[in-house]
Amino acid sequence: MSGPQVMEQAPDAQEDPPLCRRDEDAKEGTQSSHRMLGFSDALLSIIATVMILPVTHTEISPGQDFDRSMQKLLATRIAVYLMTFLIVTVAWAAHARLFQVVGKIDDTLALLNLACMMTITLLPYTFSLMVTFPDVPLGIFLFCVCVIAIGAVQALIIGYAFHFPHLLSPQLRSSTHRTVTRQHILLLVLRGPALCFAAAVFSLFFFPMSYLLMVTIIFLPYISKASSWCRDRLMGRRQPPDHSVEIFTFDLHEPLSKERVEAFSDGVYAIVATLLILDICEDNVPDPKDVKEKFHSSLVAALGEYGPHFLAYFGSFATVGLLWFAHHSLFLHVRKATQVMGLLNTLSLAFVGGLPLAYQQTSAFARQPRDELERVRVSCAIIFFASIFQFAIWTAALLHQTETLQPAVRFGGQEHAFMFAKLALYPCASLLAFAATCLLSRFSTAIFHLMQISVPFAFLLLRLLVRLALAALRGLQSLRPAHLPPGRASESEPDAQAQLLPASC
Amino acid sequence: MSGPQVMEQAPDAQEDPPLCRRDEDAKEGTQSSHRMLGFSDALLSIIATVMILPVTHTEISPGQDFDRSMQKLLATRIAVYLMTFLIVTVAWAAHARLFQVVGKIDDTLALLNLACMMTITLLPYTFSLMVTFPDVPLGIFLFCVCVIAIGAVQALIIGYAFHFPHLLSPQLRSSTHRTVTRQHILLLVLRGPALCFAAAVFSLFFFPMSYLLMVTIIFLPYISKASSWCRDRLMGRRQPPDHSVEIFTFDLHEPLSKERVEAFSDGVYAIVATLLILDICEDNVPDPKDVKEKFHSSLVAALGEYGPHFLAYFGSFATVGLLWFAHHSLFLHVRKATQVMGLLNTLSLAFVGGLPLAYQQTSAFARQPRDELERVRVSCAIIFFASIFQFAIWTAALLHQTETLQPAVRFGGQEHAFMFAKLALYPCASLLAFAATCLLSRFSTAIFHLMQISVPFAFLLLRLLVRLALAALRGLQSLRPAHLPPGRASESEPDAQAQLLPASC
Repeated sequence: MSGPQVMEQAPDAQEDPPLCRRDEDAKEGTQSSHRMLGFSDALLSIIATVMILPVTHTEISPGQDFDRSMQKLLATRIAVYLMTFLIVTVAWAAHARLFQVVGKIDDTLALLNLACMMTITLLPYTFSLMVTFPDVPLGIFLFCVCVIAIGAVQALIIGYAFHFPHLLSPQLRSSTHRTVTRQHILLLVLRGPALCFAAAVFSLFFFPMSYLLMVTIIFLPYISKASSWCRDRLMGRRQPPDHSVEIFTFDLHEPLSKERVEAFSDGVYAIVATLLILDICEDNVPDPKDVKEKFHSSLVAALGEYGPHFLAYFGSFATVGLLWFAHHSLFLHVRKATQVMGLLNTLSLAFVGGLPLAYQQTSAFARQPRDELERVRVSCAIIFFASIFQFAIWTAALLHQTETLQPAVRFGGQEHAFMFAKLALYPCASLLAFAATCLLSRFSTAIFHLMQISVPFAFLLLRLLVRLALAALRGLQSLRPAHLPPGRASESEPDAQAQLLPASC
Repeated sequence: MSGPQVMEQAPDAQEDPPLCRRDEDAKEGTQSSHRMLGFSDALLSIIATVMILPVTHTEISPGQDFDRSMQKLLATRIAVYLMTFLIVTVAWAAHARLFQVVGKIDDTLALLNLACMMTITLLPYTFSLMVTFPDVPLGIFLFCVCVIAIGAVQALIIGYAFHFPHLLSPQLRSSTHRTVTRQHILLLVLRGPALCFAAAVFSLFFFPMSYLLMVTIIFLPYISKASSWCRDRLMGRRQPPDHSVEIFTFDLHEPLSKERVEAFSDGVYAIVATLLILDICEDNVPDPKDVKEKFHSSLVAALGEYGPHFLAYFGSFATVGLLWFAHHSLFLHVRKATQVMGLLNTLSLAFVGGLPLAYQQTSAFARQPRDELERVRVSCAIIFFASIFQFAIWTAALLHQTETLQPAVRFGGQEHAFMFAKLALYPCASLLAFAATCLLSRFSTAIFHLMQISVPFAFLLLRLLVRLALAALRGLQSLRPAHLPPGRASESEPDAQAQLLPASC
């Protein structure tokens, strides 16, 4: 499969000037990996998110009670969604690391990558089996087989890339310790599959042990992240690297590339926004027979029935869109995503993926008004957690601003204040809506819809207010001869934020 | 909404050196539009494709006949899918044109873009209404309202961008005919909505006329494309522009940016691949009760029942993955996508979007063996059309190779032959499978699965064969002192292809 005997070597590739690189690539059969990575990101983000569909499709017919078996089914599906989201994120992070090592691809690597993707798409199915049959070890066995297969394909990719060094990333291509590095990377890649092999063996006679091993594998990156973070805190931070020189290490603790974090997040937001319209189109077209019999052939009257659904749709689309907008604004200022930021982003995205559930909860009001209050509260909670983790990303970025932020935004001032205000909008609004439903429980639906529809206007108002504040600041500055020093501007942040927040909440 | 009175002007932005651009952007509040366009592409491609889900979810229970009402429902849903795909592609192309004019965005433009996306997501619903109630003008009226809303938002975007010229694309920013250009672009953007306004008026008293107008709007870009192409053919082509200088016009006939075509296509492939796993996870987990009663608690035996489904899944994922791979290889050589190539790409993608239908057809074999032959043929036809249009893209690209291809691949030779072989693989295989089912109708399923599983290996063999041929060619060249002239290499193309094809089919 790695076919080394027939491929032509091109040892002089790295000496060529960059202008000829494209021609050189065509001659060597190598390609920039940009598009393949984008496709993989899209695929993985959609797989991670799409498992929310079975959760939202858990139909409760009007006559049926929300009884124990129904609750169990729903809990099962939510568990599958969360586990899938987590494991796909872990697989995605491993994939991102792998292609930090492999800089260019050829056709064989593209095909191997497809094989890797195909194996990853089977993981959700093994979770479905595990959760549906918790007492049967087959699910965990199949899971382990999948992880081992993914590890094998990734090891093949690494072996192939190191065999043809012109495929490696430029820093690694010119490195002299290639063999040592290959051992190191292979060890990192095969660590998980090795644990899985043990888990697969255990699954044959004592499967609770397998579950324990599986949990270890899933949380391994996060545990090592957390421990390294704690160590940094306790031992004192080392000097952060200069931002103009990108230092390349093969450590799993290295920040992820910002582009891939963005691409993965975009995929999640896009699929969530689209699942909403799918529900609208599938469920909200009235039946021609019903229209004839119930509404005397008046389609407008029949559609009137679905009014609340459309309101819920507009509200949910606006929520997803504006959460994307906040994420987009946030990552404009970010240069690199640290481990903690990556974890916070994953948590935020997991809740964003839960938004179709919130939509289904709110659109189901019309059918079952009795559980209204609980449903509104679940929706508020999902929105709150999705947005508060975004806020946490920004806070985490500020803690290491020389490493994580763009130089232009490092010194605080109104850009910081504006960002805080933008990110605080949804947590405040959802918290407020939650509190309001406690006080005025009879109007909970109205409060929720009001919140969803007023927040976009708050975003627009926020812009105008910040611009007015900016203009006022400029006016003041033009009166005074000297500019404010950066330190002063940074200190004035909380005040500026305090001015802005009342307008937003 | 365009809030011109409070935003600070930055007329000196274009004089700054490019290194300071990012700092300058942060100060101005402008941003590169790259990520927003990627998100829009993902959103639009998913909306275009996801309407295949209602088609594949048309359940035919084992007892039920595939009768007239069922056929009508299926035909309705397929019509909605195709119309949605077409209109979303048109909207996407208009969006791509618009952001060739607008080079940078700020927060207001990002929010306007979200509003535009939200309106576009409502289009599938209007189609559902139109197709379900063909005699009621409400569907077409709502469609017109949506298109007018999209036009209004796009006009706002253009007005806003021209009011703050630092948001425009660099070529336009330094242009002296800005006012004339704005009028021209506004006219282009508002042409469709104006026709829709007429259609909306007609829908109130004579709605067949509205349908006619709607069809005109949808096909307007294609009609003008075709007519310009014919004119080019008849009048003789003008000199193609030099590839190093990107000439910017605001004509709708200008080629689309390759990046956006790729991003849109990737979205379609990614969602199609993922819809497959969704079906697997939702339908193929056995019921715990069934396992207990029918299979004596043996989960392995229960899963054995689903064997054909998994085979179909693997085959379909491999098909989608390899069609993506062929598309990826193809666009590596493409520099710009002409109008004809864009149209062919859309057609190919529409059939790729139909692949979940092919999957559902093949995985339904286990349940209903009687219609096997028709189903295999439908699947073969979908795969054939998806791949033959890819082949046609390459042929169309070759017709204008100085304009469309990368300089490195212009002169033919083995790269061309390899590309032809890659792209001919699926059309040949599906045609062969179709022909085989006519001769050996009893084994149609086996033939189809064999085809789906053998093609990936053919791809791998193809690589090895081409590499062997390359090595042989090099060996011959090293014997002869002179290289083959480019013209000769181009002429030897069909021969090389003829050598390669028998290995692939």
